[in-house]
Amino acid sequence: MANVVEIDDPADPRLGDYRDLRDVELRKHVEAEHGLFLAEGEKVVRRSVQAGFTPRSFLMAPRWVAGLADVLETTDAPCYLVEEALAEQVTGFHVHRGALASFERRPLPSVAAVLDGARSVLVLEDLVDHTNVGAIFRSGAAFGFDAVLLAPRCADPLYRRSIKVGMGAVFSTPWTRLPDWYDALPSLSAAGFTTVALTLADDATAIEDAVAGVDKVALVLGSEGHGLSRRWERSADRRAIIPMRAGIDSLNVAAATAVACYITARR
Amino acid sequence: MANVVEIDDPADPRLGDYRDLRDVELRKHVEAEHGLFLAEGEKVVRRSVQAGFTPRSFLMAPRWVAGLADVLETTDAPCYLVEEALAEQVTGFHVHRGALASFERRPLPSVAAVLDGARSVLVLEDLVDHTNVGAIFRSGAAFGFDAVLLAPRCADPLYRRSIKVGMGAVFSTPWTRLPDWYDALPSLSAAGFTTVALTLADDATAIEDAVAGVDKVALVLGSEGHGLSRRWERSADRRAIIPMRAGIDSLNVAAATAVACYITARR
Repeated sequence: MANVVEIDDPADPRLGDYRDLRDVELRKHVEAEHGLFLAEGEKVVRRSVQAGFTPRSFLMAPRWVAGLADVLETTDAPCYLVEEALAEQVTGFHVHRGALASFERRPLPSVAAVLDGARSVLVLEDLVDHTNVGAIFRSGAAFGFDAVLLAPRCADPLYRRSIKVGMGAVFSTPWTRLPDWYDALPSLSAAGFTTVALTLADDATAIEDAVAGVDKVALVLGSEGHGLSRRWERSADRRAIIPMRAGIDSLNVAAATAVACYITARR
Repeated sequence: MANVVEIDDPADPRLGDYRDLRDVELRKHVEAEHGLFLAEGEKVVRRSVQAGFTPRSFLMAPRWVAGLADVLETTDAPCYLVEEALAEQVTGFHVHRGALASFERRPLPSVAAVLDGARSVLVLEDLVDHTNVGAIFRSGAAFGFDAVLLAPRCADPLYRRSIKVGMGAVFSTPWTRLPDWYDALPSLSAAGFTTVALTLADDATAIEDAVAGVDKVALVLGSEGHGLSRRWERSADRRAIIPMRAGIDSLNVAAATAVACYITARR
């Protein structure tokens, strides 16, 4: 059973995991250095525990304890009880979903482990937006994708906002970082995947044709602003485009991914 | 030619249109009462002018004037020059895209005018998120949808964030508010549209089948949290679902709309 501790000093060092949650740059450092991630809201906290992550601590206003009692029973981590005004002071925003928890990250699996048995994979290059990363995990899960691989500089799926938007898909879908950016796609080809890069390149074919009849597919997606790097675009086995009305620049990357996943799932 | 005016007092009342841009609730009132909307960034400002909206004023740091000189030449509206720190003080955020402009809203067209000649229409019930509204306009435009209709309580397409995420689609796609929530869908049916509600209802059929061979289609989408109201769900001609892997709750509404638009465009 979690040890419930009331805290009324916003400077209490035990609240360190929860400081300044809206400061994305600060949080990236804090969470990487301490090997933690934050879950927000009763549902996400519960899913994190169910996914087997070890809680470092919980933080909530007294009225949220009952709803998470079953979760708190399963752990020895401390549960810090604070007034809502203090929670807002520490985190920098109004925690309207009530409960927060800090979890230990786990070592990332190897690429081989993530790909084992997979038939449909998403490969994300340098996406910077956590909302997009979460939405892409969710769309991938909805259309039966088995795994997600991230380039070294892609935004973190365990960032609070990614987890929330992903609705748990970042826990249920195996994922890892690609150790080698340059040869990432040739390595996937060598592992038996047909890599299909979504791009507006001149030699792109309609994605329906690019994935038709292919067994193991890796859909490759670029960043919000500039799309794929030239290296990834050219080292993919195929370049594909989602047919759109003439004159429209493109879909946003999360929308394009949803459509591409739908099409690929029906190949 | 715009009248360029330097301002160094953050309390100057001429900056009223630009105050507290991150305060969504405040801005909703301000913009409705004064009949204005805000455009952010050189590209969006330019598109607003090209779409024929009348500028009330511009606000920018001196270094952004040259890039918008062609736009400023076309108008008599004042252009307020401010230092970047003052812009941040007034607006409440760092204006990294440089230029802001305030435009007069125009009277909304009638539903009949928006539907005239349209074959594919999106109908949004009570979406609350401006990002989703903008993304949906963008996806609709990409897949050749001709118009968007909004329930009385749907979030505003001319809100700054909607415009930005929509990448200009909120200007290029005809849209208006439905005056009558209750009979909105039967009215569309009477106008010759087959209304297809996206829903998880038990009697929903696969969307590919629901739109197959239909001439004039209205795709009907519900809010982020609770989906469609029972009234809209039941008063639609057809209920449709995007086939997904078992056990996944759903896609987010912007992703679902992108997929639904793609499918409907190919009917």
